[in-house]
Amino acid sequence: MTDRMTPEPRDAFRHFAPVTTRWADNDVYGHVNNVVYYAWFDSVVNAMLIERGLAPRHGDGAAQTLPIGLVVATSCQYFASVSFPTPVEIGVRVEALGRSSVTYRLGVFTAEAETCLAAGRFTHVYVDNASRKPVPLPEGHRAVFESLS
Amino acid sequence: MTDRMTPEPRDAFRHFAPVTTRWADNDVYGHVNNVVYYAWFDSVVNAMLIERGLAPRHGDGAAQTLPIGLVVATSCQYFASVSFPTPVEIGVRVEALGRSSVTYRLGVFTAEAETCLAAGRFTHVYVDNASRKPVPLPEGHRAVFESLS
Amino acid sequence: MTDRMTPEPRDAFRHFAPVTTRWADNDVYGHVNNVVYYAWFDSVVNAMLIERGLAPRHGDGAAQTLPIGLVVATSCQYFASVSFPTPVEIGVRVEALGRSSVTYRLGVFTAEAETCLAAGRFTHVYVDNASRKPVPLPEGHRAVFESLS
Amino acid sequence: MTDRMTPEPRDAFRHFAPVTTRWADNDVYGHVNNVVYYAWFDSVVNAMLIERGLAPRHGDGAAQTLPIGLVVATSCQYFASVSFPTPVEIGVRVEALGRSSVTYRLGVFTAEAETCLAAGRFTHVYVDNASRKPVPLPEGHRAVFESLS
Repeated sequence: MTDRMTPEPRDAFRHFAPVTTRWADNDVYGHVNNVVYYAWFDSVVNAMLIERGLAPRHGDGAAQTLPIGLVVATSCQYFASVSFPTPVEIGVRVEALGRSSVTYRLGVFTAEAETCLAAGRFTHVYVDNASRKPVPLPEGHRAVFESLS
Repeated sequence: MTDRMTPEPRDAFRHFAPVTTRWADNDVYGHVNNVVYYAWFDSVVNAMLIERGLAPRHGDGAAQTLPIGLVVATSCQYFASVSFPTPVEIGVRVEALGRSSVTYRLGVFTAEAETCLAAGRFTHVYVDNASRKPVPLPEGHRAVFESLS
Repeated sequence: MTDRMTPEPRDAFRHFAPVTTRWADNDVYGHVNNVVYYAWFDSVVNAMLIERGLAPRHGDGAAQTLPIGLVVATSCQYFASVSFPTPVEIGVRVEALGRSSVTYRLGVFTAEAETCLAAGRFTHVYVDNASRKPVPLPEGHRAVFESLS
Repeated sequence: MTDRMTPEPRDAFRHFAPVTTRWADNDVYGHVNNVVYYAWFDSVVNAMLIERGLAPRHGDGAAQTLPIGLVVATSCQYFASVSFPTPVEIGVRVEALGRSSVTYRLGVFTAEAETCLAAGRFTHVYVDNASRKPVPLPEGHRAVFESLS
């Protein structure tokens, strides 16, 4: 896994989700602030996990025995800017799997963009809900992550 | 214009826009934080103004002679909670028009909600781009605002 | 309790807390966005409650029997702008007490400001942690709130 | 410049700035969300540049001929969590200087922390205000950056 990311096309990603931009996302230069991309990454990864039954929906008591994914590292490279009110779409794939960890690669697209305007990485380490010690990825998680690789 | 707002149905609003929720919108109780509703209101009003040619899109130099809408008052009442990743839809209507000001009423809906989960108000006063003094609402603005009443 | 708020001086408030502004707080006009004021209000009220033992600090298990303050209404009026990196100070007082509710009045100050640049209201209704039904304000809460009136 | 960052002590940094945490910074687990660290980094770097005359304060017309620092890459590693209302302090040093670029290393501290709870990187490329083409770092910028190395 090298440090440097490049502007990849849509077919480099396995899952896509739409995100609406917000007025407050724009900074004084009229472009979405660098911080906001991480709010998008976080949201798209967590919504995907909830949809696939790998993370609890709010109030889903049964799911509280699931291990928790702690965020241990994130990064982003910015190739071109985007501005509210343009909606974006985030592409996701699994880039690396460890014993307890999963690293996602993310790409930010607009409707016109042939390659992503920004690329990100996001690493979860799974820990036991009570002890907060790392645990092996459950088989169900691993199967989903492999399908996203 | 009374202070108290009530949970109104969809047909009380004239314009609707979808908003995707974000993981970071949820607070420690697992519900969207009270602050975030204002980010939605701001975004939906400004996107509507841009779509209808009443506010500049980023980089739209010609539009810089348009008067600017300064936010002078906002408020929100919260009737029921919503949580990420549920998407929401915001309804908008114009509630009051003054010589230089427009007050929007806003309602937050989910797909299942028959009445809004939260209701908001948002008042813009239009000022000259250079002097920042209030100016009469331009005719084009007033016509659009009346169509949203 | 009237709707309209006015720019009050510091001595109208009973508690003050400093807040550092953030680069992303500024909007395209170079001023703190209207949404951000609510993040300040929320933070200052909750920190004050934690300091005075009326709300749980994270991980404070014993405190989970405390009733929870649900936010039912907020509002803000904006008199003058402020910009990052200027730090602000938020003044707080209790404006109204009900059987189950408390309404705070808030004021946003900079070091030079003789009257507040923005004024806000923020109403908590206290509910039982389990049933989420309104409960009378506990005596300890009421005593603190009266000292802030 | 290796990818991996480690928990460094305070004396690894050259500049410090306090940051107040916000209620909405906490996520459903009661810890500051991973996204928020980037809002802190952004704020501390930009405030430092403004204080040292290397970036314009809002409304500082004369400064509009300064080159602009565009954010091209950011990253963060999270070693331990922090929660509102605990205030934090951010340490900064310059880690790398290029012809047109500067990379900052950042560390997040609480009063008790002997080593940083999170470490970040933040790279600005300086571009001409009008053409948005990279320009050599101005001598004044380079001198300040070297003093922070």
